[in-house]
Amino acid sequence: MNAAAVDRPATGPELFLNHVRLACLPGVGSILRKRLLDHFGSPEAIFTATAGELRAVHKVGPKLADAIATLAASRIAEETIDLCRRRGVEILAEGTAGYPRLLAQIDDPPPLLFVKGRLEPCDGLAVSIVGARHATAYGRRTAFQLAGSLARAGYTIVSGLARGIDAAAHRGALDAGGRTLAVLGSGVLSVYPPEHAELAVEVAGRGAVISEAPPLATPIPGAFPSRNRIVSGLSLGTLVVEAADRSGALITARLAGEQGREVFAVPGPIDGRMSRGSNRLIQDGAKLVTNVDDVLEELGPLFEPTPAADGREVRSPAELRLDEVERTVLAAFDRAVADAGDGQATVDVDDLLAGCELTVSRVLAAVGALEMRRIITRLPGNRLARI
Amino acid sequence: MNAAAVDRPATGPELFLNHVRLACLPGVGSILRKRLLDHFGSPEAIFTATAGELRAVHKVGPKLADAIATLAASRIAEETIDLCRRRGVEILAEGTAGYPRLLAQIDDPPPLLFVKGRLEPCDGLAVSIVGARHATAYGRRTAFQLAGSLARAGYTIVSGLARGIDAAAHRGALDAGGRTLAVLGSGVLSVYPPEHAELAVEVAGRGAVISEAPPLATPIPGAFPSRNRIVSGLSLGTLVVEAADRSGALITARLAGEQGREVFAVPGPIDGRMSRGSNRLIQDGAKLVTNVDDVLEELGPLFEPTPAADGREVRSPAELRLDEVERTVLAAFDRAVADAGDGQATVDVDDLLAGCELTVSRVLAAVGALEMRRIITRLPGNRLARI
Repeated sequence: MNAAAVDRPATGPELFLNHVRLACLPGVGSILRKRLLDHFGSPEAIFTATAGELRAVHKVGPKLADAIATLAASRIAEETIDLCRRRGVEILAEGTAGYPRLLAQIDDPPPLLFVKGRLEPCDGLAVSIVGARHATAYGRRTAFQLAGSLARAGYTIVSGLARGIDAAAHRGALDAGGRTLAVLGSGVLSVYPPEHAELAVEVAGRGAVISEAPPLATPIPGAFPSRNRIVSGLSLGTLVVEAADRSGALITARLAGEQGREVFAVPGPIDGRMSRGSNRLIQDGAKLVTNVDDVLEELGPLFEPTPAADGREVRSPAELRLDEVERTVLAAFDRAVADAGDGQATVDVDDLLAGCELTVSRVLAAVGALEMRRIITRLPGNRLARI
Repeated sequence: MNAAAVDRPATGPELFLNHVRLACLPGVGSILRKRLLDHFGSPEAIFTATAGELRAVHKVGPKLADAIATLAASRIAEETIDLCRRRGVEILAEGTAGYPRLLAQIDDPPPLLFVKGRLEPCDGLAVSIVGARHATAYGRRTAFQLAGSLARAGYTIVSGLARGIDAAAHRGALDAGGRTLAVLGSGVLSVYPPEHAELAVEVAGRGAVISEAPPLATPIPGAFPSRNRIVSGLSLGTLVVEAADRSGALITARLAGEQGREVFAVPGPIDGRMSRGSNRLIQDGAKLVTNVDDVLEELGPLFEPTPAADGREVRSPAELRLDEVERTVLAAFDRAVADAGDGQATVDVDDLLAGCELTVSRVLAAVGALEMRRIITRLPGNRLARI
């Protein structure tokens, strides 16, 4: 940082550079970073402060003051940005267009997000599924199934890429052809746990791996609670599938509540250690979930019908995620209802087949997918209706 | 029924006789009986009505009108009373002193209860535990344990003597040395299911087997929902341990709610058929129970401290059920606290041993029992305190 910067407050690229530099401070989690920012007003001011000024901040000792001075004189920000460019990691700054809207609403949004993969507008409709690392078969199966059902219903599944429930949730979303986001405590190029490196690649290919730490950061103690606020902060609601007493998943659920988001929990046997936390959450007011409808019932009303690119009104999250064939078949359904003009909102399957210029098998497969997505339902007498 | 009775409304023994006669009407459940009573005003008026008057009542056909005439002319009431006397079955009439106070408060209390065993005043502190006949091992284990813990804490356990959860609940109470009541759909001398005949004998020995049907009645369709209102009606709260969709236990829970009593449910795995009903109950507002404290927390405040026979104040349900040694040790504890007069409510175990004229092993066993009953608790440093 040169002297000129002191006279001219950093903006644009310079502010960004200082934020990246701040993210690179070793051993500084979101709480201490926020304290420094609150105290000095800007990352620039932190890097131009004297050692004495720095040590006036609670929990800043000589070692950290030294580290800040070293970083100020280094090119670490430039090098990090270069690394991100080479390795395909996007850096999203708070206040810019690509930054997740829901996350921006929490009390202490991360100034920067490092993103491997891609965040899309539809990821604003997200549910996090979290739980125990040492989950039981019941917990893993449940997380997998609920993640799949929610993904088919149009929601992006957020989790923490941990062993157990987290991994099952990501896999469930991927298997259902849905989108999923993994929020890490370590850097996105330093995946923890190591055996989930391959899963991280899959997640990045159909969503994103996200961290507020620079790409090569190893996890530090305290990074996980901070990480959890991003998991819940990205989501309309948090669903806890299994959690022992004092589990990190309970922290995520608490943060979700504090952030004004929905809290859901799956019950389990009262003599199972892994169900203690989730049963307790229900006692404390979390909504008990036995199937995907219990979640959709709460989240559905949060979705406002919006006009899509093609002018049609999108009535549910699932409609944002249709493939081309599904979109064609749904459009044919809506046309058939409008053409009939008899006030009935149902269409005969045979009429739908006649109305689509597609093979019978493709139409029937698309109808099946639209049923799974809870957009249409099959009525007696081979008739279809919107849900 | 002779002509004299028509001029002189039946009271006392005569009213009682007519109520027993009414209870003996074959194929008449509590709903139709109430309809007859509401229509005619008294059992006597039912038995002096003409066939035409009887058939003016909804669901009374020629067959039932005939049966009423036959019964009116018979000595069935006298014979039933005689049978009860010979076989040790007590008949409690609504409005008399021995009739259970909580049951008298419901909308349609049975006019008579046939009781094999004995109802005691402490049975007014009762919790019913009900659930699936085809319960899982988890359900049976849970019912057994919770029944035992509640029995030790001073509650009488009410259930329906059915297979599965009911039987486990009775056994749990018996094993813990507690009291238990079994309410049958059949007569108390015609136990159903037959393989629970022995369990019924044990229950009658440490509580009571109860029915509103005469002693030899076989179960009629419709008797079980009626029976369930007595199960919940006898209890401060009803706890459902496992229940499939449309289970009878859910009817009991609904009736408990309608009667203004507490409703509790034990959660279970969402993919277990036997947990569907109980999880649903929790979604609908039942209190989720993971251990006995969750129940005691709700019921405890319903208990008002009362002076016992010996003048001491009884502060919890459990104190109503102490054996002589436990009572002696608790009195010694209370004396030690009062004597110390140092404002501390704790007593050293050694001081307690010195204060009782009993062997060390008996005192320590009693202390253990008082802990199990949640009357006293052990603090660090070998000290004891009231809970």
